[in-house]
Amino acid sequence: MANSWATYGVDLHLEPTGPGVRRGLTDALREAVRTGRLAPGTRLPSSRSLAADLGLARNTVAEAYADLVAEGWLTARQGSGTRVAAGAGSTPDGQRGSAAPPPAGAAPPRRERPGPVHDLLPGTPDLASFPRAAWLRAARRALAAAPHGALGYGDPRGRAELRTVLAGHLARVRGVRTDPERVLVCAGFVHGLRILGAALRARGVRTVAVESYGLDIHWRLLTEAGLRVRPLPFDELGTDTGALGDADAVLLTPAHQFPMGVPLHPGRRAAVVDWARRTGGLVLEDDYDGQFRYDRQPIGALQGLDPDRVVYLGTASKSLAPGLRLAWMALPPAFAEEAAVAKGGTETCGVLDQLTLAEFMASGAHDRHVRACRLRYRRRRDALVAALAARAPAVHATGIAAGLHAVLRLPPGTEQSVVRAASWQGLALWGLSRFRHPDAVTDPLDALVVGYGTPPDHAWPGALDALCRVLP
Amino acid sequence: MANSWATYGVDLHLEPTGPGVRRGLTDALREAVRTGRLAPGTRLPSSRSLAADLGLARNTVAEAYADLVAEGWLTARQGSGTRVAAGAGSTPDGQRGSAAPPPAGAAPPRRERPGPVHDLLPGTPDLASFPRAAWLRAARRALAAAPHGALGYGDPRGRAELRTVLAGHLARVRGVRTDPERVLVCAGFVHGLRILGAALRARGVRTVAVESYGLDIHWRLLTEAGLRVRPLPFDELGTDTGALGDADAVLLTPAHQFPMGVPLHPGRRAAVVDWARRTGGLVLEDDYDGQFRYDRQPIGALQGLDPDRVVYLGTASKSLAPGLRLAWMALPPAFAEEAAVAKGGTETCGVLDQLTLAEFMASGAHDRHVRACRLRYRRRRDALVAALAARAPAVHATGIAAGLHAVLRLPPGTEQSVVRAASWQGLALWGLSRFRHPDAVTDPLDALVVGYGTPPDHAWPGALDALCRVLP
Repeated sequence: MANSWATYGVDLHLEPTGPGVRRGLTDALREAVRTGRLAPGTRLPSSRSLAADLGLARNTVAEAYADLVAEGWLTARQGSGTRVAAGAGSTPDGQRGSAAPPPAGAAPPRRERPGPVHDLLPGTPDLASFPRAAWLRAARRALAAAPHGALGYGDPRGRAELRTVLAGHLARVRGVRTDPERVLVCAGFVHGLRILGAALRARGVRTVAVESYGLDIHWRLLTEAGLRVRPLPFDELGTDTGALGDADAVLLTPAHQFPMGVPLHPGRRAAVVDWARRTGGLVLEDDYDGQFRYDRQPIGALQGLDPDRVVYLGTASKSLAPGLRLAWMALPPAFAEEAAVAKGGTETCGVLDQLTLAEFMASGAHDRHVRACRLRYRRRRDALVAALAARAPAVHATGIAAGLHAVLRLPPGTEQSVVRAASWQGLALWGLSRFRHPDAVTDPLDALVVGYGTPPDHAWPGALDALCRVLP
Repeated sequence: MANSWATYGVDLHLEPTGPGVRRGLTDALREAVRTGRLAPGTRLPSSRSLAADLGLARNTVAEAYADLVAEGWLTARQGSGTRVAAGAGSTPDGQRGSAAPPPAGAAPPRRERPGPVHDLLPGTPDLASFPRAAWLRAARRALAAAPHGALGYGDPRGRAELRTVLAGHLARVRGVRTDPERVLVCAGFVHGLRILGAALRARGVRTVAVESYGLDIHWRLLTEAGLRVRPLPFDELGTDTGALGDADAVLLTPAHQFPMGVPLHPGRRAAVVDWARRTGGLVLEDDYDGQFRYDRQPIGALQGLDPDRVVYLGTASKSLAPGLRLAWMALPPAFAEEAAVAKGGTETCGVLDQLTLAEFMASGAHDRHVRACRLRYRRRRDALVAALAARAPAVHATGIAAGLHAVLRLPPGTEQSVVRAASWQGLALWGLSRFRHPDAVTDPLDALVVGYGTPPDHAWPGALDALCRVLP
């Protein structure tokens, strides 16, 4: 490609249009920084000038810059333009507590690099609230009680102790109906979805319906498993489960749509279960933050309506910490073995953390921790709503009855400029558009997805203030 | 299939000949026990009568029975024949410390079920020697030192702290030349090999040479990745690396051939590196127990000869415990990113165990633990050799300079009868034939692969005595 970027050695192989352009540009720039072809401190051309060079919309370039600022590869400061961040690049990384830029193809790195001053990206709980002391106590008790054999290769489905505790815990807090034989432990939700993608493919599934809004990485995983992914319409009642058509399976966030924040309408809950019974379809229920509901009783898991047709997926990533890399499924009897086989016939999750989580749950420490987190996040949500009412009356918060994030509806046409302004202010913030499936028929909305659960307590007021400053 | 087994509901779809027969029979019987079609206590027909029913060699049936006795699904006692073990089957499994039979397709379950009285299966260290107290101390220090960000989604390559410590540790104890940027943490060797299989396939590799003796699961993983697997000849100098032919990569155990126990001959070490340089091939070095060498200086890693052409793979499964599910690779620079991408772009290993292992190594606790284990295993090896000399002079122990297992050469034609006798005595024991690649051109040898590292200290003398009783 002949343009001024060749002088930087940046190799931009881009399709000129379509939803892949922004990702392609972001990936190419990230790669150039990572490998050192763009050295730390290098000033990048303005988004206007690069857009002209590449024949792209200026917004596309600005969004790619904003993404990379949010990820910590670039810095943007008023007056000095957009630059490659100090500390980015290919220098060896040997210091405790530091983290090297990840390899190409990796999930966006976050929160461990020279990065934004304020972080309101959704998807991570307040890591400072991880109950370190209680966790260590549980680890000590669990290791003392474990038979020697527990340290061996073990059951590929996960430790029986954890599967047993989970079956009881999920029944109590989420209304899940299962037994330990049908629980499968996995190394995070993404690992679980990878297992399910392979198992679905192996049983001949072709099309998986997904929601109009969600996480790109989930859609990509299903596609990589050889499945066709088709988004369902979304409206004020949530995802339209009447439009499943020829899908063989559907991936849903029924308790708290991610990221829109609404629960699936009761009629549509019933409809999707009816569909599954009628057609033999499978429902994959992503219950990522079902325990964090503030204003009314938790909405039970969809799985409770039909354990034979719904795969329930839960995770410790929101209630405890992503770094544990522990998630779990409750599987329909007819699908449990296929999923275990797709897991690969060997355990891949460390047994010590599994035993510790079992002990942590059985001892009541997990319930106490969740209660404390629920109180913390609820207070933050209330502070967010109050700050918006006082300082940004044009902005309307939705999806706030539950979870660790809110959707802030913006005046039409303002999302990109707000995200851009945030990146200039050192505030990591994502617009709703990055969560919209490229084939969604739903009208695009201007909004922000604000992860109010993300900052540690001491940083929350500053992050909220920074947010209010960039809102219209 | 019309035979008396239909009355048990056991569905035996077997090819009548070929190396898959025994596995097919074993799988079908295991499945029948697991699902309850064969109830606990059921007496199975004699191997002679079942062999006649199925039109198989009697040995094939006897070996399948012996495998399932070793795995704990069946019991065999003189006078009462072969029966389905009490506790096997599909009853829910809720008690701490117990373990349900694993799903179909799983690796053979071991050591946690109503099983053999004595266990000399190779592949697992003495789990009773896991340094629980020292590990917990390291966990406490590691968690106290970890920044909050360490509990997030993290670097898909693994924690920088662990990669940094590993690079130094491997240089010191194994002569590995690498840096933290090229270390990839994975959830056990099998996970690592799965990653490498995908990465090799993605770069166009077609054929991977393997050793004539090894683990079936490794060959299967490579085959499932779409690679052709071809065994190399084996002789008194070890694996013949002069016969690599058109292979694009080769999987080797250079320091201590598994299971034969010999080191790769120096000329052949040089030859394989020459081959890799000449052809652009890659060497995958499985260094599973390189630190346990007794009679001379450790043999350094092959990787040290050419870090650009050798992928080094190490594991905590032998030096600490398989349950940690931690292993690592040191990758050639040109292959490091491809492998990280093949890992899937998200971390799958819990960060707490990663940080703990880093602290455990950095503090010197790991070195102390390995020294203690080396002494323990060496004593056992000496006891084994002495017992053989005194009680089974027809049996010759080989491959005993290192590792946690020995190969006992038997008089020709006796392997199957010894393994069978062992299973009747409640001694779990594997013959060498189960480690021989079905396409190996090497002449079959009668031998046992004795995992003398497996039992806890208190059970070792009894296991050794049981072994001597079944030897010719």
